[in-house]
Parts: sequence; C-alpha cells; structure tokens
Amino acid sequence: MKIIANQGVTAPVGFRAGGLACGLKASGKRDLGLLFSEKPAAAAGAFTANQVAAAPVVVSKKNLGRTAQAIIINSGNANACTGQKGISDAWAMVEAAAGRLGLRADKVLVASTGIIGRRLALEKVEQGVVDMQLDRGPEADHDFAQAIMTTDAFSKQLAVEIELQGTPVRIGGAAKGAGMIAPNLAPHATMIAVITTDAPLASTDLRRCLTAAVDKSFNVITVDGDTSTNDTVFALANGMARRFKLSPADEKSFQEALDFVCIQLAKMIVRDGEGATKLISYKVVGAKKESDAVVAAKTMANSILVKTAFFGEDPNWGRILAAVGRSGVELDPDEIDIDINGVAVVRSGQASGFDLTALRREMKNEEIQVWINLNQGSYQATAYGCDLNYDYVKLNAEYTT
Amino acid sequence: MKIIANQGVTAPVGFRAGGLACGLKASGKRDLGLLFSEKPAAAAGAFTANQVAAAPVVVSKKNLGRTAQAIIINSGNANACTGQKGISDAWAMVEAAAGRLGLRADKVLVASTGIIGRRLALEKVEQGVVDMQLDRGPEADHDFAQAIMTTDAFSKQLAVEIELQGTPVRIGGAAKGAGMIAPNLAPHATMIAVITTDAPLASTDLRRCLTAAVDKSFNVITVDGDTSTNDTVFALANGMARRFKLSPADEKSFQEALDFVCIQLAKMIVRDGEGATKLISYKVVGAKKESDAVVAAKTMANSILVKTAFFGEDPNWGRILAAVGRSGVELDPDEIDIDINGVAVVRSGQASGFDLTALRREMKNEEIQVWINLNQGSYQATAYGCDLNYDYVKLNAEYTT
Repeated sequence: MKIIANQGVTAPVGFRAGGLACGLKASGKRDLGLLFSEKPAAAAGAFTANQVAAAPVVVSKKNLGRTAQAIIINSGNANACTGQKGISDAWAMVEAAAGRLGLRADKVLVASTGIIGRRLALEKVEQGVVDMQLDRGPEADHDFAQAIMTTDAFSKQLAVEIELQGTPVRIGGAAKGAGMIAPNLAPHATMIAVITTDAPLASTDLRRCLTAAVDKSFNVITVDGDTSTNDTVFALANGMARRFKLSPADEKSFQEALDFVCIQLAKMIVRDGEGATKLISYKVVGAKKESDAVVAAKTMANSILVKTAFFGEDPNWGRILAAVGRSGVELDPDEIDIDINGVAVVRSGQASGFDLTALRREMKNEEIQVWINLNQGSYQATAYGCDLNYDYVKLNAEYTT
Repeated sequence: MKIIANQGVTAPVGFRAGGLACGLKASGKRDLGLLFSEKPAAAAGAFTANQVAAAPVVVSKKNLGRTAQAIIINSGNANACTGQKGISDAWAMVEAAAGRLGLRADKVLVASTGIIGRRLALEKVEQGVVDMQLDRGPEADHDFAQAIMTTDAFSKQLAVEIELQGTPVRIGGAAKGAGMIAPNLAPHATMIAVITTDAPLASTDLRRCLTAAVDKSFNVITVDGDTSTNDTVFALANGMARRFKLSPADEKSFQEALDFVCIQLAKMIVRDGEGATKLISYKVVGAKKESDAVVAAKTMANSILVKTAFFGEDPNWGRILAAVGRSGVELDPDEIDIDINGVAVVRSGQASGFDLTALRREMKNEEIQVWINLNQGSYQATAYGCDLNYDYVKLNAEYTT
C-alpha cells in the first residue's frame, strides 16, 4: 500500500470534485462541495444514530440505493431541527445537483453540517451548484475537503493505492470534524466523511466493508462525547480501475486499505478536535467480550477528568482506573494493568513502582498511548480521544446561536 | 418544616461531631471528621456503583448492620486503588474510632475522599482520633462539614425541623463535592453525605426512605459525568426525639423533609462544582417511562457542549435537542417542546418565534431551569448540573498526582 501525496476523493479513476463559497458562511469561506463519479458507483452509507436526525440524513437514508453517482454537501448550516421545510430543502439540494449533472434524483446523496435550527438559504446553494467547477487532482480535492469544514482548523483528506490482481486500485477520502464528535453510526457516523474508490465492489460488499471499517475508526473516536444530528459517512465504488472479481485475498487487502484510510481520517478528526493539543489512543486488551473492550475504551476517552489530566500532562492513573470502573464492563479492580507510552504504571490495580520523572516526560508527547489489560479474556479494542482545555471551552462558549 | 440556621449533623438530639487537621492535607486544613450518636442508631448507606470501589467503601458495606453509632471520615486521601493494605487501613480507622468511643467495631462506618492510589498515613489518622473533640452546635457542625471537604470552595450543611405527632423531629446533614461527581449509588451515592435524624425509624424504613431520597437528589446531579470510586451516603436515625410509631402520614412528612435535605445538599454540591458559575436544572416531562425521563435529563446535564453553551450564556437549544436525541429514550423529534426559564424556545422540534434578547437576558441568571416536554407519556424527572468553564479545566489540569 502506498500513500498518494496531496490527494483525496478524486485520486481513484473516474471521480471529479469541486468546492466553492456560495455564501452560507458569514466568513466567506468555502461552504459547498460536490462530488461526481463518471459511471454509476456501488453506494454505501452510515448515518447518525441520534434520534434527532437532520433533514439531509433523513433524505439520504431514503435516497440511498444500490448505486449513486453524486454527493452534495454544504457547511455553515446543518439543516437540523428544521421540520418539513428542512426536508424539502434537502430534497431541493438533491434535485439541484441532479439537474446540473444530468442524473436521476435517486443517484444523488446529500449531507449538511453547521448551525442547528436555522432554515437553509436554498437559493445560495442552487446558485453554487450552477457555478461549481468539477475537476480532478490535488486542487479539486483540496477545494472539496475545504468546502465541508466547519470549526476545523485544517482540511482532512488521504488517498492510498494497493494492487489487486496486477491492477492498481485506489481509495480516496475526505472528512471534517471538529466538534459534537462521538459518532455512533448505524449500521454503525457530526463528522462527515466521503470515501471513493475505483475498486470493482458490489454494493453489498462495499456496505459490509464500510461497516467493518467504520467500527474501527469513526465509531471509536470522541472529541466531546456528543453524537451529532448530522453524522454521515458515504462510500462510492465505481469499479473504473478495471472490471474483475475480487478474490478473498483481494477483499482482505481492500478491507485493510479501507480500514487504514478510515482510521487515518478519524485520527485527523480527533487531532483537530476543538482546542485539542494531544491525540490519545486507549487500547483495551484482555476483555471478556468485544463490546466490553469498546465500552471501556470509549468511557476513558470520554472522561473529562481524564481529558483534563492529559491537558495538564499529569499521569493521573486514578482517573483512568475510575473511568474503567464506572464503564460497567466485567472486571476485577485487583487484576487491572495500565501502561502509558510503554511505562508500566499500574499492576494488579495498584501503582507500580514507576519512575514519575520518566512518566511525566512521556506525558509531554503530542501522541499518547494508554494500554489497559483487564486480564479477563482475549478481546481487544482501541478508542481515540483528545484532551480538553481552555481553547475547547472558548470555542464552545463563544460559538454563536 | 422550618430550617435551623447554621446547623448540620448535630441539630438532631443526641448527635455529637468534631473535625480537625490531622496532617493528611499538605495545606494544613481540616481533614478528619468524627460523628457520634449517644445511642445506637438505625443505619442506612448508599455506595458508589463504580466497580473500582475504594477500601472504605468495601469496609463500610461489610460493616453496615442494622444499627451504627459512629462515622469516621477523612479527606486528603481516598484510600482507593490501594489493595489489601488499603483495606487494612480502612479497618484500622474503624478500630481507632471504636476504641476512642468505647464501641464495638461493627458500630462504626468509614468513608474517605481525596487523591486516589496513595497509601493512607494511618498514624496521623490514629493521632487525630485521639485528639478529636466531640461537641454539638454550630461550631461542631461546621468543623465536621469542613473536615470532609476536598476541592470544595465552601462547606455544605443543612438542618430542618418537622413536627410528627406533636413531637419536633430534626434532620441534619453535611456533604462534600466538588469533582468526579456523577453519583450512581447502589441501592442507588465522590460525593460524601452524612444524614442524621432523631426520628424513631427502624433500619428497614430508614433504608427505604434514603433510597427514595437519593434517587431524587445525589443520583441526579452531575458536575463532570465521572462516577467516583468513593461516593458514600450514610444516614443514622437514633430515635432520641421520642419513641413512637410513625403513622403513614408521619412517614410521608419524614420522607418529604429527607428529600428536601438531600436535594438541597445535592444542589450545593452542583453549585460548588469545580469552577461552576451556574446551577442548571433539567426537568423532563411527558416521558413514556420514568427511566426515560431520568436518562434524558442526565444526558443533557452531562453534555459538555450544553455545559459550555451555558457558560457562554448562549441559548443554544440545538445542543440541548441533540443531547436528548442521543440519549436513546423514546421520542419523536417533531414533538419536543423546550422552555428555558419560562421562555418557549422550541415547539414541535423547531425554534419557536422567541425573543432572542429576552432569552439572552435569562441566560445571565445564576440559576437556570430547562424544561423539556417529550410529549410521549406522563413520567417526569429532574437532573441538576453546572456549566463547564476555564476554571474547571484549570482545577483539573493542575490537580497534582
């Protein structure tokens, strides 16, 4: 697997993208993105499990068939809690993109992100669709990735290439964060991510692969523990690399590459978590059940006491242990071991004789690995979180309504 | 019901208390409290549901019989994650208090609060027990309430008097917060609270009353969503007001007074939440089940996006609605109504035509009531939370390990 530098959603064959400012953001920054596949592509989607789902989520769930050919995404307005008018507006976005690209409406997916509870300025979106330039290459990728940003400090994209049966196959992706991040996607995703590939997958296979990848990536990240009304992950596979049947080995290679792209994008979202200064991974091993490992890892990642301790660069293992203890998973406190960046901190539920100076030094890193062995079984899972600090509070106390 | 000013645990007949600095806190502040009932009292306890339970929790659960006569509590060290030595130390605290007061060890309860993972300086506690002065009245109450504080900015106590069958009966209480607060007590309580009463209740009745009161108070407050390893609520009823059998009407009056004392103490803990500037109550009505009402109310109170919005005095109702939506309770987003301090903000899931200026003015209050009608049924519940701000981050990032 090789990484294709500076590229994203148009790295695979047959995809074009664009992004521009249609006027939804007061800042005048890009706020409308459009992605197009030259041929109909197998389609898969994962949507927020929040019962208060935004209009574009309702519309895309309804409109998602076996194939799709375009995705339209706006930032600056979430089109959430907007009632029946919001639903009409989301359908109008679909119609606008379909009209521009000469597609049937049921081949277009839609997502939105931004402020909740305000009616979308539809005429701006419609004019934006008319003005949109679609292209491929680093510039188009960058414009698209920028157009879906809200409070993100940097745009997030990635593209990789693998070889299947002698044919180079590519996977590209773009994503946005950066707050209200604790995705819970069903079939298991306010982050938004768009994955493209020229691999020849049927929609059922693409959906299975996407679900597996999402469970290891977007569903195990958290910035603030708040699951958004708009979380959405889309994947399109247009098969334009070459038509051939994937062998089991090919499927495995594809899954690994898709996992890699999703995990990297998910980590970018956490690294760009509102105010975040550190990326912390919580790896739970020795769990009795897989769900126990996931729940324990996510409970630590969501604990604001653990998050503030990491901001303070303080190896407060008592908070980590307390978080695991309240997670409700099967455990014996006297059997828990904890390492932080490879330093044995807790053994059998108590402080090991660790070197506090060495541990404090490790706490200054921007990436920190917390490893917890429950010693109850053989299941494991990893969750990714960030610290919680003054800038997070500032961003979220001052964000306007 | 009347409130007895400036009093707490020794307001009921027959209770004495004391508090001093035995040297556990580096600051030299009070860190050891002792409460004594002249006669054996019916005893009830509620303890943390965190599986990583501190040694004093393990010991008190084991030692809690139908009656008790003393409670010893230290601050400055949680005696949690301290293994078998910690258990021995907690028992030694029990023995020290029993020895000093001439009681059998099984009549003494113990609680601890402070840093996790450090061995207790037992000799300091033992000397403190020897030096302890027990008394009744405002000064003794104050010393006891202070001795159990950790990061609390102010001490928390309350006493009330009701009349049952012509006899004045008193309930007193003391509590401490102020971080790692999201109690989940079983039978349903790092807050610590001690309730005293001279009412003549049998232990089974006291336990039933305490469970009911805890469910409406300590179990529905949150500062940071982290359930402590040490949460403990104790209640002692020594019957020294006068021996008589409580009528059903008396029981109702007693329960109401106990609820009042527990809710007031619980609110004091939230008002003193680390860095907190506002006390916010979240009242959910129209829930299909009682558990739905509780879960929805607690999810809002724990949402850090909602908490930071309140710090910013921003009526960001979209965050409130998103929190309810992810709580997993039965709802229809299009049927939700939300009021903030009596201002109709959301009707049928959408922004009502509220006056933003008036609402912004309401957001400046120190106490804010959020009212949410799910319109699904007839159950209701209230949870209490605070805002999340710079001082919270500062306190928790700088708290030492």
